[in-house]
Formats: sequence, C-alpha cells, structure tokens
Amino acid sequence: MAVSPPACPRRLLPLSLGLFQGTLLLFFTLFVTYDEPSVQAEDASVVANQLYSIFPLFQDIQVMLVVGLGLLLTFLPRYGLSVLTHNFLLLNFSTQWALVLQGLFHHFQHGQVHLDLRNLLTAEFAAVTVLISVGAVLGRTSPCQLLVVAACEVPVYLASEWAIVSRLGVLDVGGTITIHVFSCYFGLGVSKALFGAVHWPVHPKETPTPHSDLMSLVGTLILWVFWPSFVAILCQPGDAQQRAILNTLLAMSASAVTTVVASSLLERDGKLSPSHLQNGSLAGGVAIGAVANMAMPPVAALTLGSLSAVVCVLGFKFLTPFLARKLLLQDQCSIHNLHGLPGILGAAASAVAILVASKDTSGSQVSPTGGNAREAAWGRWGDSGAGGQALCQVAGLAVAIGGSLVTGLLTGAALRLPCLARPPEQLCLDDSLYFKMMDQGGSRGPGSTTEEGVLALKEQV
Amino acid sequence: MAVSPPACPRRLLPLSLGLFQGTLLLFFTLFVTYDEPSVQAEDASVVANQLYSIFPLFQDIQVMLVVGLGLLLTFLPRYGLSVLTHNFLLLNFSTQWALVLQGLFHHFQHGQVHLDLRNLLTAEFAAVTVLISVGAVLGRTSPCQLLVVAACEVPVYLASEWAIVSRLGVLDVGGTITIHVFSCYFGLGVSKALFGAVHWPVHPKETPTPHSDLMSLVGTLILWVFWPSFVAILCQPGDAQQRAILNTLLAMSASAVTTVVASSLLERDGKLSPSHLQNGSLAGGVAIGAVANMAMPPVAALTLGSLSAVVCVLGFKFLTPFLARKLLLQDQCSIHNLHGLPGILGAAASAVAILVASKDTSGSQVSPTGGNAREAAWGRWGDSGAGGQALCQVAGLAVAIGGSLVTGLLTGAALRLPCLARPPEQLCLDDSLYFKMMDQGGSRGPGSTTEEGVLALKEQV
Amino acid sequence: MAVSPPACPRRLLPLSLGLFQGTLLLFFTLFVTYDEPSVQAEDASVVANQLYSIFPLFQDIQVMLVVGLGLLLTFLPRYGLSVLTHNFLLLNFSTQWALVLQGLFHHFQHGQVHLDLRNLLTAEFAAVTVLISVGAVLGRTSPCQLLVVAACEVPVYLASEWAIVSRLGVLDVGGTITIHVFSCYFGLGVSKALFGAVHWPVHPKETPTPHSDLMSLVGTLILWVFWPSFVAILCQPGDAQQRAILNTLLAMSASAVTTVVASSLLERDGKLSPSHLQNGSLAGGVAIGAVANMAMPPVAALTLGSLSAVVCVLGFKFLTPFLARKLLLQDQCSIHNLHGLPGILGAAASAVAILVASKDTSGSQVSPTGGNAREAAWGRWGDSGAGGQALCQVAGLAVAIGGSLVTGLLTGAALRLPCLARPPEQLCLDDSLYFKMMDQGGSRGPGSTTEEGVLALKEQV
Repeated sequence: MAVSPPACPRRLLPLSLGLFQGTLLLFFTLFVTYDEPSVQAEDASVVANQLYSIFPLFQDIQVMLVVGLGLLLTFLPRYGLSVLTHNFLLLNFSTQWALVLQGLFHHFQHGQVHLDLRNLLTAEFAAVTVLISVGAVLGRTSPCQLLVVAACEVPVYLASEWAIVSRLGVLDVGGTITIHVFSCYFGLGVSKALFGAVHWPVHPKETPTPHSDLMSLVGTLILWVFWPSFVAILCQPGDAQQRAILNTLLAMSASAVTTVVASSLLERDGKLSPSHLQNGSLAGGVAIGAVANMAMPPVAALTLGSLSAVVCVLGFKFLTPFLARKLLLQDQCSIHNLHGLPGILGAAASAVAILVASKDTSGSQVSPTGGNAREAAWGRWGDSGAGGQALCQVAGLAVAIGGSLVTGLLTGAALRLPCLARPPEQLCLDDSLYFKMMDQGGSRGPGSTTEEGVLALKEQV
Repeated sequence: MAVSPPACPRRLLPLSLGLFQGTLLLFFTLFVTYDEPSVQAEDASVVANQLYSIFPLFQDIQVMLVVGLGLLLTFLPRYGLSVLTHNFLLLNFSTQWALVLQGLFHHFQHGQVHLDLRNLLTAEFAAVTVLISVGAVLGRTSPCQLLVVAACEVPVYLASEWAIVSRLGVLDVGGTITIHVFSCYFGLGVSKALFGAVHWPVHPKETPTPHSDLMSLVGTLILWVFWPSFVAILCQPGDAQQRAILNTLLAMSASAVTTVVASSLLERDGKLSPSHLQNGSLAGGVAIGAVANMAMPPVAALTLGSLSAVVCVLGFKFLTPFLARKLLLQDQCSIHNLHGLPGILGAAASAVAILVASKDTSGSQVSPTGGNAREAAWGRWGDSGAGGQALCQVAGLAVAIGGSLVTGLLTGAALRLPCLARPPEQLCLDDSLYFKMMDQGGSRGPGSTTEEGVLALKEQV
Repeated sequence: MAVSPPACPRRLLPLSLGLFQGTLLLFFTLFVTYDEPSVQAEDASVVANQLYSIFPLFQDIQVMLVVGLGLLLTFLPRYGLSVLTHNFLLLNFSTQWALVLQGLFHHFQHGQVHLDLRNLLTAEFAAVTVLISVGAVLGRTSPCQLLVVAACEVPVYLASEWAIVSRLGVLDVGGTITIHVFSCYFGLGVSKALFGAVHWPVHPKETPTPHSDLMSLVGTLILWVFWPSFVAILCQPGDAQQRAILNTLLAMSASAVTTVVASSLLERDGKLSPSHLQNGSLAGGVAIGAVANMAMPPVAALTLGSLSAVVCVLGFKFLTPFLARKLLLQDQCSIHNLHGLPGILGAAASAVAILVASKDTSGSQVSPTGGNAREAAWGRWGDSGAGGQALCQVAGLAVAIGGSLVTGLLTGAALRLPCLARPPEQLCLDDSLYFKMMDQGGSRGPGSTTEEGVLALKEQV
C-alpha cells in the first residue's frame, strides 16, 4: 500500500495557494470595504428585508455546490475524499479569485469596492463554471493542475459573461448559456488538449460500486431539490421570480420522470443506468435557465424538461462513445451530456420562446396587464425587436461555445507544462495519492476495518 | 451474478410512463396557465413577500421527501439505489398526476387552471400519501406495481381529503388524519391483498447492516429537522403558524427522548433498536399535526410527543409480530407503527383538545384577547359547538381508516393482475434487479471493490 | 460476536431519562405558556414577519447540530450509529434541561414563563456546549455518563454566559467565548478527571476508514455551509446582521483554503490529513463569532479565518501530541484544536478590533454615518471606553476558561462514581455495545453482508 509521490512537486500546491492568499489579503486591505451602515431606521429595515429575501436562496446554493455537487462526484469508489476536497477547495479558491478580478476590472473604475452578498454570489457563479469544467478531467489531474484551470477559467468566464449579457444583451437569468454551456466546452477543451491523443482503457477504479452510486445519487437529489433557488436568485423579485421557480420545478419534475422512461427504453432488459438517473434528472434545470423568467405557458417548461432529459440520455448512449472513439475525448463526469446538450437546447428554446411570445403579443393588442412583466423580463429588446433578440440568443450561444473551446484548449495545453506533471496512470483515482491514510503501517488486528480485513485475508490466502 | 429479467414485461414501465407524460403535456397545453402578472408595483411586492414566506418552507419539505424519506428507506442494504429511485420517481409521478386530477376536478369548474406554488404543494401532499403507503410493500413489488398504487391512491386521497376537510370540517392542519392515517391503512390494505395468505420467512437481504442503519438514521434526522415546516406550511401566517412550529418542535423533542427510554426498557440488556430510533423519533411529528395550531398549552405538545413515541415502540414490540402472525400482514417499513398508531393518537388528541379548550373558554369569560387566535384556528365550529367538532374529528378518522382500507384492498387485488407480475422472491430486495450494475462482467482485478473482492475470494476459497 | 453487558446498570439510563421527562412535564404544566395571541391584525403581521426572519436561520442551525455535527463525529468507523444517536439524544435532553433551568432562574421572577422560538434557540445554544464538550470523551463513555455531563454543564453554562455577557458586558454575538471556549475547556476538564492517569494506546477501532472519513467530511461541509446562520441569528436585524453573515462567509472561505496550505506543508509528501480538513475548515467560524458584527474591514475577517486555520492545524501537529504526552490528556475529537485555540484567537481579535476601531474613530471626526452601526454593535462601552471594553473581552475569556476547567474537572470526577462505571476498554468504540444488531445470531447465508462475510470467511480460513 506504499504509494510513491507523483511527479508534480509536492510543495507547489501549498506555496502557490499561500501566495494567492497573501495577494488576496493585500487586495482586500487596499481596495475592499463594506457598504456604509444605514443612518435611518427605514434604511436598516430595507437592508434587513433584502437580506431575508436573498439569504435563504444563497444558502440553498451553497448546499448545492458544497454538498450536492461534491457527493454527485463521489461515484468513483476510491476517490471520494479527493473529489469532495478538490470541489471544496476549488469553490473557495475560484470565488476568492473572482472577487479579486471583479473588484479590479468591474468596480475599480468607481474607486473603493463595496462588498455585499450579491458580489459574493456572482463570484460564486464564476466558481461554478470551474467546478463543472473540471468534471471532464476528474481523477487524472493533480490539484495544482486544477488550480491552473481555475486561474485561467475565472477571468475568461467574467469576460465571456460580460460580452454575452452586457454587450449582446442575451437573456439568461439561470446561466444556461453563460455558465453551463460555457463551462462544458471549456472543460472539454481542457480535456482534449491535456489527454490529447491518448486513449484510455477503463480503469478498474472507475467502476462505481452500488454504494458509491448511492452516494452520488444522494448528491443528485440534493442538487435537484435546490435547483430552483439557483435559477431564481438573480430574478427580479415578484412575478418574474415566482415564474422562474415554478418553471424550474416543472422542468425538473418532467426531467426526472422522462429520464426513467428514456433510460429504461435504451438499456437492455429495461434496467436503469445509475449514471443516466444521476445526470438526466438534472438536465431540465440546466435547460430551463435561459427561459425560466419569461412569460411562457407552464407546458413549455414541462416540454423543455422532458426534451432535455431525452437529449441527455441519448448523449450517454450514443454521443459519448462516438466522441471517445472519434475525437479520443475523455469526459469523466459526462459534463457534455448534463451541461452541454441541455444547455444548447435551452439556448435554442429561449430564441423560440422570444419569437413565439412576440407573435402572441402582436396578435393581440399589447395589454397593459401583460406589459409589466414582459418589460421586467425582456426590457432590452425594445429596439431590435423579437427577431433581433432571438438572434442575440443564438449569437450568445456561439460566443459561449467558441470562446470557451479555444480558451479551454489553451488552458489544457498549459497543463502539460512539465512542472505540472499529472499523476501516473496507475496511481490515479485513488485517495491514497492525496491523503494521509491512517491505516498505512497500522496494525491489522481483528479490530481493523472490513477493507483491510479483506486485503489481509487475500495476502494470507 | 447474472440476473434473469423478472416476469413483469420490461417495456411496460417506460411505455406507460411515457404515455402519462404525453397526457400531462396535453392537459397542460389545454388547461393550465400561470396567474396574470401583477400590474401595480404594490401587487408585485405582495407577490414577492408571499413567495419569501412560503418558499423556504416548501424547500424544506422537498428535502424531507426527496432526501430524508429516501435515505430513511435505505435500511435494506442491497436495495438502496432502488428505494431512492422509486421514491423519487413516485414523488414526481404522483405530484404530476395529482396536478392533473386537481386541475380536472377541483378547479375545472372555474375554467382555466392557474398554477401557483400552493397548487404544487397540495399536489405534493397527495404524493406523500403514496410514498408512505408503498413502504408496506417495499422491496417485493415492481416499479409498475408501484405506479399502479400511485395511480389509484392519488384520486382516492383527493376524494378522501375533500370529504374529511371540506365536508366534515375536520381540523387537521398537519395532515395527521388526511395524510398519515389514510396512507397507512391504504398501504396495509394493498399489502394484505397483494401478499395475501403467503407468509414470508425473513429474507437475508432484509437484515440491515450497521452502515445501512446509519444511512437510514441520517434520513430520520433530516426528516426530524424539517418536520415543523411540513406541519406549519399551510397554517394561517402569524400566531397560528408560530404556535404550530413551536408545538411541533416540542413534540418531536419529547419523541426523541422518550423513544430512547422506551426502546431501552423493552430490549434485552437495555440496548437500543435502530428501527425504534428511526421511527419513534418521528412519531411526535405525525401525532401533532391535527392539533399543532390549536390554542393549547405547551405541555400538551410534549405529552403528545412522548405518548406517540411510546405507542410507536410498543407497536414494534408487540403489535407488528401479532399482526404478522394473526393476519399474515406484511409491513416492510413498519408504517403502521410510525403513521398508523401515532396518527390515531393524534386524531384522538384533537378531539380531546377541542373539548378541553371549550370548557376552559366557558369557565372563564370569553376574552377578546384569546378570541382572535381561536377563531383563526377553529373558525368552523361556531354552530355545532365543541362537542360536535370533537365528534367530527372522530368521524374524520373513521372515514380515513375505512375508506383507505377498502380502496387499498382493491388496489392490492389489482396488483395481482398477471401483466403486473411481481418479481420472484429470490431476486427481490436487490438493486441488480432494476439497475445495470457496472461490475457485471467487469474485471475483478485488485482495483475492484471490497464487496466484489469478498465474493471473488469466497469463490476461490 | 456476543457482547456481555457493560458494568453500568442497564436500566439506569431509561429510568433516569424517564424521571427527567416526568419532571419536564410537571414543570411545563405549572409554569410554561405561549404568548397571548395578537389581537390586532398589524400585530399578527409583525409576528409573521418575525417568524420569517428567524425561522430559516433556526432550521439551518438545527441541520448543523443534528445532521452536520452528527456526521462529523462518525469518523470512528464502527461507532457511527452510537455517535449519531448520542448526539441527537444529548441535544434534545440538554435543550429541555436548559428550558427548565432558564424558566426557573431567568424568567421565574416575572411569573409565567412565555415560550417562544427565541427561548428555544438560547436553550439550544446551551445544548451546543454539551455536544462540543463530550467530543473529548467520545467513544469511551456510557450514555449515562454523557447525561451526567449534560446535567452538570448546562447550569454552569447558563451561569457563565450570564456572568460573561450580562455582568461583564462582553461582546460575543457568535458565541466564540461563551460557547466554544467554554465548552472546550469543560470537556478537557471532564476528560482529564475521568481518564486521569491512564495512557491509552491507539485502539484499532479508532482508525478511520476512507469511508468513515468521507462521511465525517460531509458533516464538516454541512457545518461549513450553515455556519453563517449560527453566527448571525442573534444579531440585530439590518446592517449588523448582514455584516455578521459576510464576515463569517469570508472567514470560512479563508479557513478552507488555508487549511489545505497548512496541512499540505506539514505532512510528509505534501499529502493532506483528513482530520485537518474536517476541523481546520471550520476554525474560521469559531474565531469570527466574537467580532462578526463589529464594524471592521473585510480583510480582518479573511485574516482571522486564515490565522485560525493555521492555529488549528498547528495544534493537531504539535499541541495535541504534547498534551497527550505531558498531561496524559485524552481529546478524542480534538476539540481543543477546533474550539479551544481558534476561540482564544477570536477573543483576542475582539479586543484588538475594539482598540483599533476606537483609534479610527478618535482619529477622524465621529461621523453620524458610522455612528448608528457602532452603537448597535458596541452600545455598552460608552462609559468605560474602548480600553475598558477590550479588557472586558479578555476578562470574559479568563472567566470562561477558568470556570469551565474547574467545573469540568469536578464533573469528570463525578463520572468516576461506581454506579456510572464506564464500558470496558475492549468493548469501547463499537456500536454493538449500545445497539441490538440484527445480525447477531442471524443466518450467515450468501445473502448476508460484506462484513459478516469477511468474518465468516476468517473463521473458515
């Protein structure tokens, strides 16, 4: 059980992380303050109410990212501690890094940076893209490499988000295009450039056990439950936010049922595949993000949820093997099926929804009743018209895919630098590579664990 | 490890589910819309505040049903993936089915159906009854059979709830009678009619392991924490809702401690039984539902919590073996001890609480201070008086038990149809029956899992 | 596998717990009521809004204590059911006991005791000290002994909290001094007096497995996510509460990253230690409590979070072995590294923050803009000045440490009473001591569990 250290120099991780923490402290010392406290009692009450309206949703999202996503990734049976830890570390590092960059670029022009819960939230959204992208290369990359991915992806995401939302005026309240599609193709780019021409045989440690599949499914369920908060947190309070929540609930419910249908039809004997369930159930949440707050009938949300689950399961069955064979593309967590395909579907749906809604509106008189909500959701396309806005959605999608693929490939190439050498294949996917295991050199008496018992027994036998 | 397909035709599940999804889409297309968005800014603010008041509780309930209840059922060590999945599928299917039926029956008379979070919530409550009922037949029924149970139980629940609450005027804010008692006897009816005269020896796969007991206990704890939200979500905001939360917290705290006392006194050597803990700790929550918002002193909640835990543990010790022996009744998850007995206790307590409160009121002068809350909670029994209302509670209990037993027996009989043939006994309670396990036919090298290792080893030895 | 009963008489636990439940009911019957319901509609709306502002945070804390803390303690691989159960039982018993004592001592002078969510919350905070303290003696104490610890610690905590906050006027909104430091030294006192001169060799059952470490890390992550609610729930709504949440988020984020840096630098080969991660990531939350609502720049929270993580990891590496060697001090869950050291650091930080803030204020003119928040947070030190308040913080720390150590030692001595004899060493740390395991005497056929399989196999081999 003695494991030799991997090629990546062991002190690189703590030293670079430590250096970053120092920079962070310096940056905060120089530039960042809190808002001035309210003077008037009414202002204090407004602050309190704003807090109560956003904080429960914020906590939901924290649970999703830290616990739900972490558990979802524990399907690798011997790598659970590592994925949970890497996910947690990357979330914190990327959020801090995004705070620094946001502070420097977006807010710097106004002098002091005022930190509030909303800044933290948008920084956390930048971190989400990292957590999704690294799913493509999970298990075969060192923590140093993952930090480099985060360091590269966060600024690219911020630029891409600015271009797509602020410049192009794309409507994407739940991050379908800016977060899911972007991070998927960034991750695939990294994977392609990093693992390149090598074709992996399936590593025995990659095979989930019933127990690791169970833990992963618990992660899925946690994500499933809290997803409406993720989609709705940045919506305008009131009708738009309520609509976003309801649409997400409907889409995810349809996804859950349709995943069972699709998986059961595609597998031999009508059995279910755990990975279909773990991913397909969430596909509706990915797709609904771009249209969640739009004024569309409930059936549209159900349909989109069902379609995205079908697309996800079909991706598992046909596209993943195809990409692995033809492009030698490694996608460990199948992020293409969960984030890529449903994300593209959602972007297309947003264009269609805009066109249909404008036809509805021009058919009838623009009633003042409907006007308020439409403005809130789609305030921007007054000039260019619905067709223009629909085109914008497609353009935004193209920017997200193109930009992320190119920068992802560059990042992946950077990961091949000798100083970042990734762990040797036979040591991959194993917690003992990154964790001091207590049982190393310990006694193997009758009190030791099952696993040790088995190993000891094997040696005896 | 090769498992032959069970008798139930494999394509029945996806085809019937797919057909239902189609129907759902059609129904939504024809009849369901969202509320019109608010015109005035004040209205929008009201919508926002309503959302903030209900949404955190709604999320709590989602966690309970999807994660908490799912984990509670994973005490079967080889069936965890299946119970988690079936629970999740049934929740979504039943909610959708309840939405359709609610839309058709309750709202249809008003034309368009307006979907909001409250509709979704009541539909989800209908789904809860299904999730509880199938606990009686867990592990020995195919997914098709479970869907038939759901298809039958949801309309019966809606009718029963209408009769009990709207017609009889029963007070039951937390669903003690309408949800817990109803679903318990429905499930027992299904079990009796389905498994009938067959007596099961204990299947080796039914024996929980320390680990599966641990996961199940985590499920219990999640349910325990969020139970106050389940009881209080439909209460009138303000005093009644606050009282409901406090009463539930007290009852569940008393349940937790009393369960340890009762289990420890009843077991040999003063040890605890994991199943007592997993269920008894929640018994207080079941019982308190019918009285949670009533104006009673805090000690009543504590007493009711303690009593229901005692009743639950005694049920495990004496009633379950008795029913199994005399009635040949299979109750896999002991729903009778968790939902049946404490539910009946809670219904009786509600009758007593009404009688006592009316005596208190007539003893003292009816003070205007107390009046407001009483009216809010018990507005309906102005005419019939306290005695009449107490009788109503008992009548509601009788309707719930009688109606559910009869319809449950009929549903169980329907499950014996040849096309729904349940899985053969030797394949039951095993995930490999419903899931494509990755290790089937895989290599069993040194990298494979503990469990495989043991099996491989056994073969060698 | 047959386990003989431990020395502690088996009926002592249920009988004493049952007696306490009776006392609780009597006390509630005599003294406790709910608030009178509101008469006016506006009052009812105020009640409703208060509920919505506190209840989501309250639920977060419940999740932390019941699920998060419980899972954190499951790192002992064969003792998971027991720690989860003991944690749950102690939480409920201690909360009830604190309700009784609070009712008797604090509120009795005003006649009737009015129970509301805030009372329950402060009672639960008293219970938190018990949950932390027993971490020092986890696994080698009987449930009876744990109840005695709770019975002794709760009144001492209430007295200590009264002395520190109400008498000395110490500022400690997140319980750094009153909860964390207090409970740590109380627990260490108990451990020292109970295990005294005995030096334990490492028990084989104390070695975590990868899986038990994973479950424990999940517990850490749950605690990490919800910690801001714990710190902020008692803050003044508005600016102070918002600042408390932001400071806690920043401190915990810094802790998480710094823990990885520190652990990786200190361990051989740059590997991480699971226990460092499980504890260090939370150290920032412990330390920030005393300063969270103060008007300090964000960088202070980041720095404090980083420092506390460093202190925690250094404690693991150097102080724990030192204390074990020199003082023969047993600290099973390393509460000194998580609660003691970061707590002291936080107390010191609060003194420094007060001094620095007063210098800032005297340097500039006291602007009315900043005044409001300062008053809210530090209203008390108008007379004694900043220096006096800083001294108070240090005095409060001294009282917490001194008082808890002495009373902890006395409690530990009481635990050595013969009637409370603790379980024999060879039976410790094993669930089978307290739980009826289903597999005892059961069949060991091919369907039985892995662990049994291994054991059976060993016997055959």
